[in-house]
Amino acid sequence: MIRFNCDYCEGAHPRILEKLLQTNLVQTAGYGEDEYCREAADIIRRLCQAPDAAVHFLVGGTQTNLTVLCAALRPWQGVIAAETGHIAAHESGAIEATGHKVLTLPHRDGKISAAQIASTCAAHWEDATHEHMVMPGAVYLSHPTEFGTLYTQAEIKEIRAVCDRYGLILFLDGARLGYGLAAAENDLTLPFLARTTDVFYIGGTKQGALFGEAVVLSNPSLDQNFRYLIKQRGGMLAKGRLLGIQFAELLRDGLYFSLAGHAVQLAQKMRSAFIEAGFPFLIDSPTNQQFPILPDTLLAKLGEKYAYSFIERVDEHRSAVRFCTSWATREEAVNQLIEDIRRN
Amino acid sequence: MIRFNCDYCEGAHPRILEKLLQTNLVQTAGYGEDEYCREAADIIRRLCQAPDAAVHFLVGGTQTNLTVLCAALRPWQGVIAAETGHIAAHESGAIEATGHKVLTLPHRDGKISAAQIASTCAAHWEDATHEHMVMPGAVYLSHPTEFGTLYTQAEIKEIRAVCDRYGLILFLDGARLGYGLAAAENDLTLPFLARTTDVFYIGGTKQGALFGEAVVLSNPSLDQNFRYLIKQRGGMLAKGRLLGIQFAELLRDGLYFSLAGHAVQLAQKMRSAFIEAGFPFLIDSPTNQQFPILPDTLLAKLGEKYAYSFIERVDEHRSAVRFCTSWATREEAVNQLIEDIRRN
Amino acid sequence: MIRFNCDYCEGAHPRILEKLLQTNLVQTAGYGEDEYCREAADIIRRLCQAPDAAVHFLVGGTQTNLTVLCAALRPWQGVIAAETGHIAAHESGAIEATGHKVLTLPHRDGKISAAQIASTCAAHWEDATHEHMVMPGAVYLSHPTEFGTLYTQAEIKEIRAVCDRYGLILFLDGARLGYGLAAAENDLTLPFLARTTDVFYIGGTKQGALFGEAVVLSNPSLDQNFRYLIKQRGGMLAKGRLLGIQFAELLRDGLYFSLAGHAVQLAQKMRSAFIEAGFPFLIDSPTNQQFPILPDTLLAKLGEKYAYSFIERVDEHRSAVRFCTSWATREEAVNQLIEDIRRN
Amino acid sequence: MIRFNCDYCEGAHPRILEKLLQTNLVQTAGYGEDEYCREAADIIRRLCQAPDAAVHFLVGGTQTNLTVLCAALRPWQGVIAAETGHIAAHESGAIEATGHKVLTLPHRDGKISAAQIASTCAAHWEDATHEHMVMPGAVYLSHPTEFGTLYTQAEIKEIRAVCDRYGLILFLDGARLGYGLAAAENDLTLPFLARTTDVFYIGGTKQGALFGEAVVLSNPSLDQNFRYLIKQRGGMLAKGRLLGIQFAELLRDGLYFSLAGHAVQLAQKMRSAFIEAGFPFLIDSPTNQQFPILPDTLLAKLGEKYAYSFIERVDEHRSAVRFCTSWATREEAVNQLIEDIRRN
Repeated sequence: MIRFNCDYCEGAHPRILEKLLQTNLVQTAGYGEDEYCREAADIIRRLCQAPDAAVHFLVGGTQTNLTVLCAALRPWQGVIAAETGHIAAHESGAIEATGHKVLTLPHRDGKISAAQIASTCAAHWEDATHEHMVMPGAVYLSHPTEFGTLYTQAEIKEIRAVCDRYGLILFLDGARLGYGLAAAENDLTLPFLARTTDVFYIGGTKQGALFGEAVVLSNPSLDQNFRYLIKQRGGMLAKGRLLGIQFAELLRDGLYFSLAGHAVQLAQKMRSAFIEAGFPFLIDSPTNQQFPILPDTLLAKLGEKYAYSFIERVDEHRSAVRFCTSWATREEAVNQLIEDIRRN
Repeated sequence: MIRFNCDYCEGAHPRILEKLLQTNLVQTAGYGEDEYCREAADIIRRLCQAPDAAVHFLVGGTQTNLTVLCAALRPWQGVIAAETGHIAAHESGAIEATGHKVLTLPHRDGKISAAQIASTCAAHWEDATHEHMVMPGAVYLSHPTEFGTLYTQAEIKEIRAVCDRYGLILFLDGARLGYGLAAAENDLTLPFLARTTDVFYIGGTKQGALFGEAVVLSNPSLDQNFRYLIKQRGGMLAKGRLLGIQFAELLRDGLYFSLAGHAVQLAQKMRSAFIEAGFPFLIDSPTNQQFPILPDTLLAKLGEKYAYSFIERVDEHRSAVRFCTSWATREEAVNQLIEDIRRN
Repeated sequence: MIRFNCDYCEGAHPRILEKLLQTNLVQTAGYGEDEYCREAADIIRRLCQAPDAAVHFLVGGTQTNLTVLCAALRPWQGVIAAETGHIAAHESGAIEATGHKVLTLPHRDGKISAAQIASTCAAHWEDATHEHMVMPGAVYLSHPTEFGTLYTQAEIKEIRAVCDRYGLILFLDGARLGYGLAAAENDLTLPFLARTTDVFYIGGTKQGALFGEAVVLSNPSLDQNFRYLIKQRGGMLAKGRLLGIQFAELLRDGLYFSLAGHAVQLAQKMRSAFIEAGFPFLIDSPTNQQFPILPDTLLAKLGEKYAYSFIERVDEHRSAVRFCTSWATREEAVNQLIEDIRRN
Repeated sequence: MIRFNCDYCEGAHPRILEKLLQTNLVQTAGYGEDEYCREAADIIRRLCQAPDAAVHFLVGGTQTNLTVLCAALRPWQGVIAAETGHIAAHESGAIEATGHKVLTLPHRDGKISAAQIASTCAAHWEDATHEHMVMPGAVYLSHPTEFGTLYTQAEIKEIRAVCDRYGLILFLDGARLGYGLAAAENDLTLPFLARTTDVFYIGGTKQGALFGEAVVLSNPSLDQNFRYLIKQRGGMLAKGRLLGIQFAELLRDGLYFSLAGHAVQLAQKMRSAFIEAGFPFLIDSPTNQQFPILPDTLLAKLGEKYAYSFIERVDEHRSAVRFCTSWATREEAVNQLIEDIRRN
């Protein structure tokens, strides 16, 4: 069985494990206050051209989302997100468990627009009874989105302007950021994100690390006492060095980006095969996740050899599914899948 | 600089890293639903002689404590703990952040007694205004305690009886459980803990793993929907296999216990040296943490070569400090310290 | 200015104030443990034909909603509600502040159906990743709804069956319950509600009392320790007697129902006038709230003499608004409004 | 049975009820946005010589405490309080339910000192692992305390200085403020409190009103969006006017202060009788609560005619109890009690 169902089916890139082995018996301080974390944070600040940004390392995405939003929001505020946003749909109510409402907006290919956000805020403030509703306090974007789609610089600048107008924190979930930056049509960059968002993160878990997300806080008011929250919410790794070692290795010489490029290239190859075979897509994704609509008969056959994720039933005979590639996907595995699609 | 300040200064036992390398490219399902986790859970159930226990793997201690207590308590309940208990003293308010009060009791060598717990509960229920106070709903013990001391079977059985009388969940924090089980005077066993507590955990982070705590839930009502909470509170590792692989390796053939034995033996050697040199102890610990009271002049000298933790000032010239050994401590390092103590 | 904008513009029915005066200097125990509360609870149990129900008195609606749901839900659960439900739309995130998500469903005239609830639950449990989502744990209905519409016995029985199938608590918000029971087309009764829901409340604030909601808990598991929660969430009135006195007075001889009847009758009179004048309604309501769609020119004119609530813009020239009657509405005020509508 | 067990055994001062009757059918806006609330707030600002203070009216004490502290604290902060403080001892974990720890200090006659607070803060910030503990964010005082004792201006100024040094919000619970201000030895004033604390409240529930606490926010940063929190936490009374009417009546011409004076005078008369009869006190209180230590035999006899509160057992034969007077206590009742004490 070959797994295309997600992008976290394997361990870590061999260079990561090698580095963990090399450094294994070096003694360091705990809780992320070691040399490896400092080095990794410095590399990230350099790549972001953000010498004053604070960088923190957390273990996973849900943990990062809830910790950042807990720091960003006051008790009477909620966070605006696409109804398909990870915090709205797939985190078991993690944000609500911190006391905050997720204010969902209808999505378009997984994305929300500046106009939607502005109109939500305008509606809130124009309502005479706004104190009886949840005040928008932050915007959550994911890039790529949960459907593998991308925001443009122009779109994010517009959203930034709305955030400035209404006093909102802008937070970008980059759990798959590398796969976004590696896409042909992408125009975002790390420096752009560092200067345009208040906080974003560079995902490691799905992109070559064993685990780990690197949070970049450009807004200094968010960094105030952030480590207390990391500890309180259970995200402070005793051996924080494990995060520093991994991110330093991934980012020191571009490994992170080349791994992402590999995954995206294979996903696009797979995509072409689906197109050639005449299959439509639920959503057109330029990144490592592909959402073809396939006949159930074909899915049954493919299911004997490949794992994929079910997304939704489209009609009586067809379903939309997800095939993912990752840094670890072997070209032969994709070739074999393509052959099986063609042969169908 | 040789670090004796804590027991998580290094990475993991080489066998762990080797196993991570061997399994690195095997594809598995995510979120702890893989073969490695199943194997590790089976080993734990066997070691605990608890075929019906549920076993879950989490990344760290604070995360485990808050997730377990969130599952164990209803909104009007609090958890009884020693004032020195980790949840009361060193988790940044993690339990309160889930909405629950920690009901602290004075400790004796880091421990609390059945009599204290009974009297707290009796006082609560006898008070005519008990609805205006926090109802005790669980008891939190740590073994070894934060001062390296141990509960006996007799003590825990008494506490269990009080828990039964007052409807309390009994939860034992085993972040350093191995170091407790390896102590000469210890009489607890895994089967005893599995049948006497509602829930306890076997700590990995401080005992040979990169990270990880294995939660053993004997009370089936606690297991109901526990995975929702792990996810919601940010503790569900995408590559859950990393936890399964580590615990299977540690527990398959007793590695966990021999590593703990190594640390305890070195700590006792260090302890004898302090005693021989005429230094008293803040607390008498039979495990891997030692709390000598030392002259500040000696501490200054030792501080040039060794890292230790400051605990408290004892008088004008002396302080209590903590020296820890771990699975990774080298005998030569301890020998060198001993020499430096003697030479003093 | 005559206020039709809401149904809590005045104080209380004179008999209530009279009773407060009469009993003013009688000394009682605090916190709802007095004779008046016991009497009122007994009357309610009798009216509900529910001798075993627990009855608690709280001050207001949001307070009641958040306290009941906090008792009903476990941390991993959310409550299903119409997107227009008061807890979803107008309580400043009170439910989320207790850590729980409101799982909203599209409404039809303010109502949700058994089929919608069943399909939400089915979708949750069929999803392979349901642990990554919020488990439905309760259903929130309001009767009358926020749009003044009514559920039938048949509809609620169907919803009850779905709740039984999926283990959901059924909670009915009766902030305006009297106005619902007084409607011509209503077929609900207090005994029906007591035996069909797990918990509902009889609203006093909007129906003749100074304030107060009487919670009827038929499900004994919900009553366990409910008073702790009332206290903890700030809803335990020191002089609880004020609630008992008011509800006893309202319910002893049917005053509550005749006041509600008065309000509904005047609202229907107003409704007929809108219909006769050719104005459509946003939603057809048989209770004390009316939602006509009126030309902005007429609204401007009416606005000089009457207060009403703005609901939504319908087209370029017209808006939907809300006119309410209450136990305190004078017939002459309605007659004057009707004349002004006719004269328009 | 004559009740001396608390100071909320009756309804309200007759002038309050009269005013409620007079204004009963006047129509007003809801939620505290009416003329009566505005008038009462203006009176309070005038009495406090604080023209810029924000004034909000809430129903009860626990509700007020939790709402204010929720506004004052960030998620990583806790509130410092005496271990006997109401928020620590008698609010069912209300503060913890908002996610915050109560950092308790040993009390002296119900009070805490600037030195204790300073030393708690110093200890926090000096600890190398302070991020693993709860950051002090506010100080909670009650005046009079739960033992009827008083702070002096000098003491509160010292506490204010510590708060300034460590960035703490200073919050004073005035549930019985009038009884404190009326005591012979008191030197606090409303203007002093308004300029020295960040927020305090003037209690109505125990001092002549049916219910109600008037919150005075001198620190404008706390007022930001405070009404959202009042609503969210269930404290926004639909008929907010009821609070405005009561406070305006109590404070317009000094009724509040003369009622408090009445209670304190009777309490001191009772106190003299206990002293004359040779009974010691648990704590020496100059306000309306008295804490004599009495033989159990006498208590049994008194218990047939009078209700009092049990505080604690002092020795085998004696207990400390509480006798309260209030605005409503009749002089004859006190005289009768005194006679019964003398006759003993």
